[in-house]
Amino acid sequence: MNNLSINDIIQISNCEVINLQSKDIKFSGIAPLNRANKEQISFLINDKYIDEIFSSQAGAIICSKKTAELLGNKVAAGLIVSDNPHVTLAKVSQKFFKPLHPFHGISELAIIDKSAEIHPSATIFPFVFIAPGVRIGANSVIYSNCFIGAASTIGDDCILYPNVVIREGCRVGDRCILNPGAVVGGDGFGFAADTNENVKIPQIGGVLIEDDVEIGANSTIDRGALFDTKIGRQTKIDNLVMIAHNVVVGELCFIAAQVGIAGSTIVGNKVVMAGQVGVAGHVKIGDKVTISAQSGVSKNIPPEQFWGGSPARPYKEWAIYAATLNKIVKQTNKKS
Amino acid sequence: MNNLSINDIIQISNCEVINLQSKDIKFSGIAPLNRANKEQISFLINDKYIDEIFSSQAGAIICSKKTAELLGNKVAAGLIVSDNPHVTLAKVSQKFFKPLHPFHGISELAIIDKSAEIHPSATIFPFVFIAPGVRIGANSVIYSNCFIGAASTIGDDCILYPNVVIREGCRVGDRCILNPGAVVGGDGFGFAADTNENVKIPQIGGVLIEDDVEIGANSTIDRGALFDTKIGRQTKIDNLVMIAHNVVVGELCFIAAQVGIAGSTIVGNKVVMAGQVGVAGHVKIGDKVTISAQSGVSKNIPPEQFWGGSPARPYKEWAIYAATLNKIVKQTNKKS
Amino acid sequence: MNNLSINDIIQISNCEVINLQSKDIKFSGIAPLNRANKEQISFLINDKYIDEIFSSQAGAIICSKKTAELLGNKVAAGLIVSDNPHVTLAKVSQKFFKPLHPFHGISELAIIDKSAEIHPSATIFPFVFIAPGVRIGANSVIYSNCFIGAASTIGDDCILYPNVVIREGCRVGDRCILNPGAVVGGDGFGFAADTNENVKIPQIGGVLIEDDVEIGANSTIDRGALFDTKIGRQTKIDNLVMIAHNVVVGELCFIAAQVGIAGSTIVGNKVVMAGQVGVAGHVKIGDKVTISAQSGVSKNIPPEQFWGGSPARPYKEWAIYAATLNKIVKQTNKKS
Repeated sequence: MNNLSINDIIQISNCEVINLQSKDIKFSGIAPLNRANKEQISFLINDKYIDEIFSSQAGAIICSKKTAELLGNKVAAGLIVSDNPHVTLAKVSQKFFKPLHPFHGISELAIIDKSAEIHPSATIFPFVFIAPGVRIGANSVIYSNCFIGAASTIGDDCILYPNVVIREGCRVGDRCILNPGAVVGGDGFGFAADTNENVKIPQIGGVLIEDDVEIGANSTIDRGALFDTKIGRQTKIDNLVMIAHNVVVGELCFIAAQVGIAGSTIVGNKVVMAGQVGVAGHVKIGDKVTISAQSGVSKNIPPEQFWGGSPARPYKEWAIYAATLNKIVKQTNKKS
Repeated sequence: MNNLSINDIIQISNCEVINLQSKDIKFSGIAPLNRANKEQISFLINDKYIDEIFSSQAGAIICSKKTAELLGNKVAAGLIVSDNPHVTLAKVSQKFFKPLHPFHGISELAIIDKSAEIHPSATIFPFVFIAPGVRIGANSVIYSNCFIGAASTIGDDCILYPNVVIREGCRVGDRCILNPGAVVGGDGFGFAADTNENVKIPQIGGVLIEDDVEIGANSTIDRGALFDTKIGRQTKIDNLVMIAHNVVVGELCFIAAQVGIAGSTIVGNKVVMAGQVGVAGHVKIGDKVTISAQSGVSKNIPPEQFWGGSPARPYKEWAIYAATLNKIVKQTNKKS
Repeated sequence: MNNLSINDIIQISNCEVINLQSKDIKFSGIAPLNRANKEQISFLINDKYIDEIFSSQAGAIICSKKTAELLGNKVAAGLIVSDNPHVTLAKVSQKFFKPLHPFHGISELAIIDKSAEIHPSATIFPFVFIAPGVRIGANSVIYSNCFIGAASTIGDDCILYPNVVIREGCRVGDRCILNPGAVVGGDGFGFAADTNENVKIPQIGGVLIEDDVEIGANSTIDRGALFDTKIGRQTKIDNLVMIAHNVVVGELCFIAAQVGIAGSTIVGNKVVMAGQVGVAGHVKIGDKVTISAQSGVSKNIPPEQFWGGSPARPYKEWAIYAATLNKIVKQTNKKS
């Protein structure tokens, strides 16, 4: 945990500071409005908590322009005014809390093939297995019990937490975070059914994970049958998510926990899927689509739509459907 | 596997023995009514099987008072009469079958930071990584390929099966069991969306797991954003369950496989969630609530209620709703 | 990757070759119709792509008899005519792409109990823990960070990818593939609820996995309470699937990702479950049953039926139900 001056903070995230009583204060961390002290920074992201701002002991508060105008001089704390206070909070928070790793350097208890190229600034924990032809970029950290298969590459500034498996022929970009137990490049689920056997179809594609992707704990991204399964840059995937073979997920998506996307489906950019959504194989989800929790998507969704239900449909349609059924049920039971 | 006398059994679980032909017999194990022999103990938990009691060869049968009165002298076996035969069965069974671990002591092939305090009676398998400041209590067993992050603590008499990951700053109480692949303290899913990037919000809370908790294989309990995610004492969590950041789960709950609980939700005591239930973020589930399988909970549930459906509602309401719709569909299709 | 002559291919899979311009060509791999070159074999499995066959540069194309008759002499490529082109494709593909493992032999950095019997042709990667009494058959490959518990057996020609856990007393047949992070034999979810504690019921059964089974990444197959949980031969299980204690799954089944099957349920042969299906405990699913995605099965299903919905019912019934409700909702909203 680092201490930060107000100038450090202004530089991190383009924002304006008003009302601050002293520029000399060194901030020690971040806390919610009702718990922060004078050496801490707090934040107002959700307007629900605006009343707490008046009694907060925080030294400074990150808020929106609108909030700052509303508050005027009524608040004791300094205001860190931002066009996007959520982003400012995240960036300031990253400066306070840099991940500390409990091992540094390249362990002699890791097995690293001679042909692997490990950047000298990378960290390889004990009990890691690195196969031939692997490349690992600058500052990347590979925790204990990870496995990286032949010819797979990891970019710069990545963190692979313990027990992550990257099988052969996969590519991971820069600044990716793979949480514990994530599996990249496991075999896709491909078989040909005969009368008395199910013949495995070799899965000879890989997985391409672009820059700034995060993958949650114990999530699985299968390798492609013939070509690569792909996860676009800045896409964030939560825990226990299943991405099947040949799926292409676009950029800047959020995929919440326990979502499953079946084989060969194409997901656009800035798509948001809430928890436990299921998407059938071979469908197309347009850019900026949002899908509500537990929905079951079995057909294409045009861009910029909000869908829900199982089978999924446009959310408004789904809401009217559900409300109408509730009404019909009530009327039926009143009569009888 | 140990042999037990009837006196051993009476001491384990407060119960009364009637009808037993000899007190000298040493019981060798437990088996269902239709498979037990004279050296084995059987049980009647589910009244469906009461007829099997008459033909059972078991040496003794664990049953309720009601069953014992009903049976009187009509059964050859001794009866171990208990207020809660299920609990008696569990406790007797625990005496017969103590887990045997295939390694003892502290392996020289584990990496253990000098500052870690490992109780001398604990077992650390090979290929375990233990970070600085970790504490591990008496008799706890840490299987191979586990990882325990900085300053995390494990209480007494715990078992961490292979490939369990506990990241930094987490606390696990006494007598906890973590099944293989469970992940405690992975990063919560917190990001601030900007136009062209999703900025990670550092997750600086930890996870607090109280005493006597069990966590299933490959389940994930994320660390809190600012404070601890918490699992209350005696709560049992099945496999592939997702508990998101900031969630507080009370005591004595049962959470079945593939349940997902989204961020900041508060779950009371003695709550039961059946398989594949999804609970939205920021809701409150009251004490003693039961939720049926695959339900989708999006709002608060008052205590002691039984809910079901997606969106979930009181189960009776849900049942009437479903039955009414079925009726309406039938009538509609009769007319046409 | 191997090169194959047309005679190699005929021998692999009983099929007839027509139209081939030269028997001397050595094929180098497989590609889709629109990407294959003259040294590659392509395939027509899905009639949707039949038009692509005329412009394909492939040296030979695997297709059905029906397709071959339809095409006659109109295609430049040779035709590999098969009764089951999907199976032929799979078998040919297996010959081209044999898995290459990045380690061979038995690592000195694995911990292998003296009493374990490891076939000399088996491969044991570094950082594997093998408990007393384990047996591992010919040509089986155990990747890094796997754990195999006491007295468990692995047959011939198996692959256990990294971080697979097989706990004690489990049996895995021949030619099984366990993808990374799969857990076999974790404790079943069995507890007896008392007022102030939930008493664990020791799970003393094991898991029996028959020949030619594949288990997906991070899937969990729990050990039985008293007897073995069982997975029948040739059954293929996708990622993040939960099979609870005492479940019996038949032969030749396909179980897609994120399916959960609760305790003691019996699944017949050739059953297909699509993604995210949930099956309650203690039910029977007949042979050749198919269940659509996200269905919730709470009662027995007779053989050869296609079911869907939650609660699940015969699919036709479910489809009529859904269509009728849609109609009713539309009419209701037209009137008002």
